[in-house]
Order: sequence, then structure tokens, then C-alpha cells
Amino acid sequence: MSLLKYTSSGEKLTIKDIAAMAGVSAGTVDRVIHGRGEVAEETRQLILKIIEQTGFRRNMLASALVSKKKRKIAVMLPSPSRDLYFWKLPQRGIEKAYQEIAPFGVEITTYHFDYENRKDFVRQSRKVLKQSPDGVLLAPVIREEAQTFIESCAARKIPVVVIDTCIDHKNVLSYIGQKAFHSGRVAAHLMHWGMEGKLHFLVVHVGIAGMGYEQLKERAEGFKKYFAESFSEQVKISEISVEAHDQKKINAVLDGFLKKRNSLQGIFVTNSRVYRIASWAASRHMNDLRIAGYDLLEENIKYLKDGTIDFLISQLPEEQAYRGVLALFDYFMGRGKIEPVQYLPIDILIKENINFYKF
Amino acid sequence: MSLLKYTSSGEKLTIKDIAAMAGVSAGTVDRVIHGRGEVAEETRQLILKIIEQTGFRRNMLASALVSKKKRKIAVMLPSPSRDLYFWKLPQRGIEKAYQEIAPFGVEITTYHFDYENRKDFVRQSRKVLKQSPDGVLLAPVIREEAQTFIESCAARKIPVVVIDTCIDHKNVLSYIGQKAFHSGRVAAHLMHWGMEGKLHFLVVHVGIAGMGYEQLKERAEGFKKYFAESFSEQVKISEISVEAHDQKKINAVLDGFLKKRNSLQGIFVTNSRVYRIASWAASRHMNDLRIAGYDLLEENIKYLKDGTIDFLISQLPEEQAYRGVLALFDYFMGRGKIEPVQYLPIDILIKENINFYKF
Repeated sequence: MSLLKYTSSGEKLTIKDIAAMAGVSAGTVDRVIHGRGEVAEETRQLILKIIEQTGFRRNMLASALVSKKKRKIAVMLPSPSRDLYFWKLPQRGIEKAYQEIAPFGVEITTYHFDYENRKDFVRQSRKVLKQSPDGVLLAPVIREEAQTFIESCAARKIPVVVIDTCIDHKNVLSYIGQKAFHSGRVAAHLMHWGMEGKLHFLVVHVGIAGMGYEQLKERAEGFKKYFAESFSEQVKISEISVEAHDQKKINAVLDGFLKKRNSLQGIFVTNSRVYRIASWAASRHMNDLRIAGYDLLEENIKYLKDGTIDFLISQLPEEQAYRGVLALFDYFMGRGKIEPVQYLPIDILIKENINFYKF
Repeated sequence: MSLLKYTSSGEKLTIKDIAAMAGVSAGTVDRVIHGRGEVAEETRQLILKIIEQTGFRRNMLASALVSKKKRKIAVMLPSPSRDLYFWKLPQRGIEKAYQEIAPFGVEITTYHFDYENRKDFVRQSRKVLKQSPDGVLLAPVIREEAQTFIESCAARKIPVVVIDTCIDHKNVLSYIGQKAFHSGRVAAHLMHWGMEGKLHFLVVHVGIAGMGYEQLKERAEGFKKYFAESFSEQVKISEISVEAHDQKKINAVLDGFLKKRNSLQGIFVTNSRVYRIASWAASRHMNDLRIAGYDLLEENIKYLKDGTIDFLISQLPEEQAYRGVLALFDYFMGRGKIEPVQYLPIDILIKENINFYKF
């Protein structure tokens, strides 16, 4: 029936070809394309005309042919230490992106910092600046210090792409992450799914000393807003914070909480440390409690498969890091406009679909 | 803290560079890399040694530099006509892939065939063969004719990538799609989520005359298996088929079905035509009925947002087509092994996360 047809823009044309046609150097063509450096207006017009007439597409291939320059990307992420296993996940995305762009002369160095030690973040960020990278990928989880670091990068004209935590800063090339508030709403709907009448849900923040709670609070806000809008009469929400490292203390806090209440239908954990709550629930055989949290850590997947956790929301940390590196690469190559904000999907994982989510 | 370092394999090295080092033509190097044509064994060994020593990575860039050959991809999909709107979606994936690979001299032509007319499929497939494409992307929804066509391609050594419907055929380069059975299990779990006691669910196949039901039946099997395993005593499942084009008749069939039964808790529609069932439910104000189906058609999204549909499962048709085209491209470029089967994620969409899923 219908016949759609696409044709590419004729023969592949490189910057060198255009330079030859215009009788100038490839460097001159490159300057015109990227709007950098000085070129006589007459020459500029000639080159633009040739580009237009030949249908030249500015593409990776052509750019790479001219730019033999090495590019260095510095990645700053928390160390994936105890209860911070989440930070193993972005590394896979970085490796995948690296495989794709290494042939274009890109080098990636990862600097892990200690999440529980602000001074270490400062130390690592100094190392990064000393290396003078061409771009930085940053998880700004230690907010104040991250702000300072981003400003230092801006002063040196180093583009910064931010993942995971949204940070309000004009000096960021792109933010790639999940809308925390909306992920809380998704969790609320599934938590409530199929339940009726008087209900009581508990929001638990499983934190780490010195760590910011902004993102966790935003998720809790989305969760609570969902119920406040339509079910404020029937649904009661409690909210507590516990420290991640001490399982015994977590157990005691939750046992104590349950003792004082007559009933509890579900627990929403606002980050990837839901395995701590699942561990408690499994040891108490709390089979009727609906439990939800974030991210595909090995332990979380185990608890999802055995039914202790009912659903997980993935933040797609691999995808965040992958896209973050590619955004910097696109910037280096002068490829179009970089999206200043990229909100990723809010993936819902249950026992039956978890095996199909491998990055 | 820790400092991981990746470096790319030194300066970018092209096939021309290797040819210069070996004192042979670029064509000879290309033949060795792709294992095509005759090359003296001594020369072959020398080239392989240089490749090994210099850490040359066979990559898109280098391959494209040598291969100035144009490549033609033929895409065969059903026309996105009435009740086949689903087939609009893969086109976006094809366009995205085209944007990426057009600079390498790839041309894509889409041949739409009439899903309800086997002869038209045969007619279009003849057109494709006449064009002698370098690769074919096919949705083999008309199975017998598709098998014959795949065999014709094999006889002409044209690689075929298959999307959407799994077809058992040795002559397929790659199948990219969703595990139909498992998506039915996902639907079953969410359909049952939070419900207890005696329940009755209805599986509806909204078909089109002459169309195969294999994929729909497989989804229904997954759905029924879930309940048979653990809830066979409490949950009763009925299964009916209706014709897509006649909404009045669909309404009459469902009204009649409900009249004979005392209760029904949910309806699982085994494909993207869930909007037909939602239209009926909305007109009858069946607010308590849980309704689920497949794919992000405009109408389905509307019914999801207004609460008539409770959840949708996405088959990721855009991603299927995108990966399908890139698999052919990778094959042309001789890039590693093409995965013979790629099962995509089974995405769950509800009111609260639907807006974050845009291809």
C-alpha cells in the first residue's frame, strides 16, 4: 500500500570535502560550523552556501574526522560502600557509553567520594579540577559542596552534567533523573491498589548520618499528596526516619511502632535501602504487609522474588549515567542543543517482569 | 577514594593507517577484518598481528571510512489503518534509527501492507524482493506468507530481522519483541492485586477477521497460568473473542455476558484494542471493573487517564523497530555477533507514570 521513502543526503561528505570545494583548510570549515574563532565573512558565507547546497549534515563522523583532540570526562559518584550499593549501578551505564565513544578519543576517569565524609568530596573535587577535564558528570548528593564545585567548574568553563539529584543551578549543562515527587505518587497508587476502607500506611526514610533528605522528602510528599487529594478521610499516613547501618535498631523501632498501632497495611521506603525494612518484615513473617521501595539492588530483587517486597520503582541509574556521558560527548561534538532537563521513566517492577529489566 | 581509570586504545586508528603499516591496500585490510574475499595467508597474519598490537577496535567510524557502499533497508509493517493504530508506533523508532545511521549511507524504505488482505502482503513482499534490499525488517503478523517471504530472502542471502511476533524460523537474523506469555502473567498479578475471595475475570480477544490469534492466545495462557498455579479454587476465568470494527456488537456481547453472570471483577484485553472495551465500560459507568490491555495508543492513554483503564502494558514497539534497524546496520558493518533473540522489558503504565513514557 503506502510507500514511505527516506534517502540520506547523497554521498557522505566530510569537512575535508567541503574545505576542498571552498579552497580553504578543514580547520576553517570547522570554525564556521561550530561558530568558533575568526573567519572572514566572505569565506564564511561561501562555506555556508556549499554546506546548504550539498546538503551536508553535521554528524559525528565528519566531526570526528576533523577533531583529533582527546577529550577527558571526569565522573564523580559516591563510593558504593555499605548501604550505598545503589552507586554500583551507574557504573554500568558509564561503561556502555564508554564503549560507544572511546573510538572518538574520549577518556573517562571515575572519582569515587565517601558519601559520609564531606571533606572527601572536597578532596576528590580538587583532584578533578587539577586534571582539567573537558566535562564533568556529577551526582550532587552532598549539596552545598556540590554547588561550590559546580561554580568552580563554571569559572573554568567546564560543562557539568548532573544525575540522580536535581540541583537548582544555572551552571549545569543538563540534569538527568527522575521526578522524585511523581515517583512517590506512583508508589501511592500501587500501595493503595485494591484496598478499601480505613487504612494506615507508614513512610520510612532509611538514612545515613550526614546525608541530605531532600530527595526522600520529595518522594514522601508525592506519596502523601496522592492520599490527601482523594482519601484523606480513610487513609492515615505516618512517617519515620531510621539509620541504615544498624539492623537491630531498625527492627526495634519498627516493632515498637507496630506495638502502639492496631493495624498497618503498608510501608513505603523512600530509597533503595528498602532491603533493611524487608529484612525486618521477613524475620517477623509479616506476609500481609505491602512493602515498596526503590531500585534493583541484588538484595531488593531477592525480596521482590520471594514476595516480601511487593514492588520496586527503578530510578534507571544506569540509563542516567549513560545519557549523562553521551550528553557531554554531544556537547564536545557540537551536536545540536543539549536538553537542559531529561526526566526518565518511572519503571514499576514486580515479581513477574523483573527478569526482563537488565541494562 | 578509589580511582577507576579507563583509557581509549590510544590514537584513533583507521583501516587506512593499518593498511599503510602493512604496506597493503585498505581493501585488503577490510577483507581480512570481515573475512570476505581472498587474501594471501601471510598478509592476513601480518594484518591480524598489527591489529592486535595496535589495539585497533573495529568500530563504526573505521568501517564507514572504507565502506562507501550504500545500504538499503526494506521495512515491512501493517498499514496503521482502522483498529490497527498500533502500527503507527514502530515508525517513530525507524525514524530515530534513520537519523543516527543516515550519515553512513543507509536508505530505508517502508512498505505497508494491508493486515486484512493476505494478497497485499504477497504483493508488497514481491516489491521488496524486486528492490534487492541489503536487509529486511519485518513484522511477520501474517504467518504463513511471512514464512514464505523469509525463505525467499534467505535464498537471496538477504538478512531478515523480525519484530513484534515471534516466528520459529532458522533464517532470521534476530527476533526483537516481548515474551507474550510473561506479559500475561504480569497482567494477571496486577489484575489480582489487592483482591481476595471468589473472583471472576474475563479475557477478551478483540480480533480482526483473518488475523492470527497466536500471540493473543499466548498472553491469555500466561494470564490463566498465573491463577491456575495458586488461585484455581477462588478465581474463575472466562474467555471470549469479539470483532474489533463493530462497537455496537461488542457492547451487545459484553452486556449479554454480564447479564448471565452475577459478578465480574476485571477484564484483560489481550492487545492494543482495549479502547473498544473501555468505550463500552465508560458508556455503562462500570467504575468498579478493573480493565487492562496493551500499548500506548492515544485512545488507550485517554482511558487510562480518566480511570476507565487501570493499567497498560507497553510492548515498546518504537524500541523494537529502533533496535531492529540498528541490528541490520551492525550486521552490515560487521560489528560483532547480533543477538538472535532480544526480549524487551514489560513496562507497566498507570495514570501516575504514563506522562514519563515518551519515545
